[in-house]
Amino acid sequence: MSLAEQLLSGNRLALTRLLTQVENDTPEGRAALTELFPHTGKAHLIGVTGAPGTGKSSLVNRLALHFRRQEERRVAVVAVDPSSPFTGGAVLGDRVRMRDLSGDTGVFIRSMASRGSLGGLARTTAGLVQIFDAAGFDTILIETVGAGQAEVEVARLAHTTLVIEAPGLGDDVQAIKAGILEIADILVVNKADRPGVENTLKALKSVLELAHPVRHVFQHHGKLEVVAAAEEPVYSSWIPPILKTVATEGEGISELADEIARHAGYLRESGDWAARERSRLGSELDALLRETLVRRFREQVSKSRYEDVLDKVFQRELAPWEAVKMLLNGRFE
Amino acid sequence: MSLAEQLLSGNRLALTRLLTQVENDTPEGRAALTELFPHTGKAHLIGVTGAPGTGKSSLVNRLALHFRRQEERRVAVVAVDPSSPFTGGAVLGDRVRMRDLSGDTGVFIRSMASRGSLGGLARTTAGLVQIFDAAGFDTILIETVGAGQAEVEVARLAHTTLVIEAPGLGDDVQAIKAGILEIADILVVNKADRPGVENTLKALKSVLELAHPVRHVFQHHGKLEVVAAAEEPVYSSWIPPILKTVATEGEGISELADEIARHAGYLRESGDWAARERSRLGSELDALLRETLVRRFREQVSKSRYEDVLDKVFQRELAPWEAVKMLLNGRFE
Repeated sequence: MSLAEQLLSGNRLALTRLLTQVENDTPEGRAALTELFPHTGKAHLIGVTGAPGTGKSSLVNRLALHFRRQEERRVAVVAVDPSSPFTGGAVLGDRVRMRDLSGDTGVFIRSMASRGSLGGLARTTAGLVQIFDAAGFDTILIETVGAGQAEVEVARLAHTTLVIEAPGLGDDVQAIKAGILEIADILVVNKADRPGVENTLKALKSVLELAHPVRHVFQHHGKLEVVAAAEEPVYSSWIPPILKTVATEGEGISELADEIARHAGYLRESGDWAARERSRLGSELDALLRETLVRRFREQVSKSRYEDVLDKVFQRELAPWEAVKMLLNGRFE
Repeated sequence: MSLAEQLLSGNRLALTRLLTQVENDTPEGRAALTELFPHTGKAHLIGVTGAPGTGKSSLVNRLALHFRRQEERRVAVVAVDPSSPFTGGAVLGDRVRMRDLSGDTGVFIRSMASRGSLGGLARTTAGLVQIFDAAGFDTILIETVGAGQAEVEVARLAHTTLVIEAPGLGDDVQAIKAGILEIADILVVNKADRPGVENTLKALKSVLELAHPVRHVFQHHGKLEVVAAAEEPVYSSWIPPILKTVATEGEGISELADEIARHAGYLRESGDWAARERSRLGSELDALLRETLVRRFREQVSKSRYEDVLDKVFQRELAPWEAVKMLLNGRFE
């Protein structure tokens, strides 16, 4: 029986082994991904992202606990840490996280240190997610640290993306909000017991209003409700709600879980679920194509030829574009 | 006279036009980069990076002012903002930044919103830097927002990389420090008038000691001095100093400029300057190769064929790896 078959029959050791093989990008890992692919596409993928200091990890832990204990779902967490491109910090992370959930086979947490390029990281994450999906985990939380491109990659991978903010993270935060708002399906202000929470909420609301000008957005019963402006048609599109949480105390977690469920319902009704799946798989296909093209190029151009050309660039005898032409000339044309 | 020739003769309008063409990746921009490439390689490239809330932008402004006014250098700033992958925020940024420096042709500030992939962003930044370099700007500051992969890309582009921290940015900060320390040539604790600065310094020092265990690192006369451990040989390698600044007040800026100059001296003496140049140009060449390979692939595979294959992946009839083989089969082999 192949590892993939063992995985499908519920073997936990096969799961652990396959995760490692996928993370190390071994031929066995690739073969297993291919074998398991028809069994994927069932899980709800939830991205959780936000700047350092927002308390993402606590929030992810609490959400995992909630989904497991209150809703009896099988929950996997993939914690991606691109803040550490050189040194791995995964082992300690695993230990800290596992404390509340250890011994429960319905929860599996995998931390991975970022390796290689960002594209490579996204691809590896996609692979881990597929393994969990095939293994029957119906809810997969994908946590990323960092502000910027990493968030966009998460958004491509997830069905539902949570963007976490926290009060008082400084003057650059406003700028970031504007950018990541466009990938947020749900906005969470964590550490909502801290001073400055009202300012953070206000700032998020004004950015939301800029992004969705035809609507009035206001707070109601502690949740955000959306009302169409008087003369405007009611659009069916999703407006990101803003929620307050205090993850360390478990406050706001079940409300957040409700919003996540509501978003999943919206995705299925509107047809966006399928659209996101397709776009996600398209990104994955593109990344694989790019990687394969580069690998084939490397197999065809000798190391010494490449170094010779790079030397010429270094000596300013050849501009980079000219070097590319020289390296590729007559090769693929 | 070509735009490139006009640029070399000091025409400022040509500079502005070429920056735009490079940012938009036009054929004219590419041709100009090739024409100008032999005139590059003179500037000192200084990367400035750090998490949101550290006050990077103020620090960059102050450094630019210092280099210009105290040292009469020609200074360019390229502010890369990957926090805003969808919406551009460059215009406002430009206006805020230009206030202190407007009217001085020896300073040029260019903000760019992140576009497309991170690799594409790094390539565009490299292009803008080459234009400034050829135009005779001898000091080029490259500012990036965000924690993670963006820093690594900056490190590849710059000769000297400053990593900015600030007190009290929350619990994830420690994790980030460990990762970005390895790209830092100089560590700056900005907002050093804030509470918690001693904790931040202490944390940075302990991470430094972990990274450079053969040395004792201690604070002396307000600056960091490095002393070889008793039984150990004195290595010639650079140990990142830690500096305190309050950028909004201009405090610590001239000390920081001194350390930057000292690092440039170290790079030239040790031969690391050339090594960094070569590695930087290697990264640029790789990015161009990757892009060209993908473009050629796209030219050879029809859109409808690609969509057919993606459909099969979406229907789970074909795994992504199988799809790649199908798309590339018989094409480049």
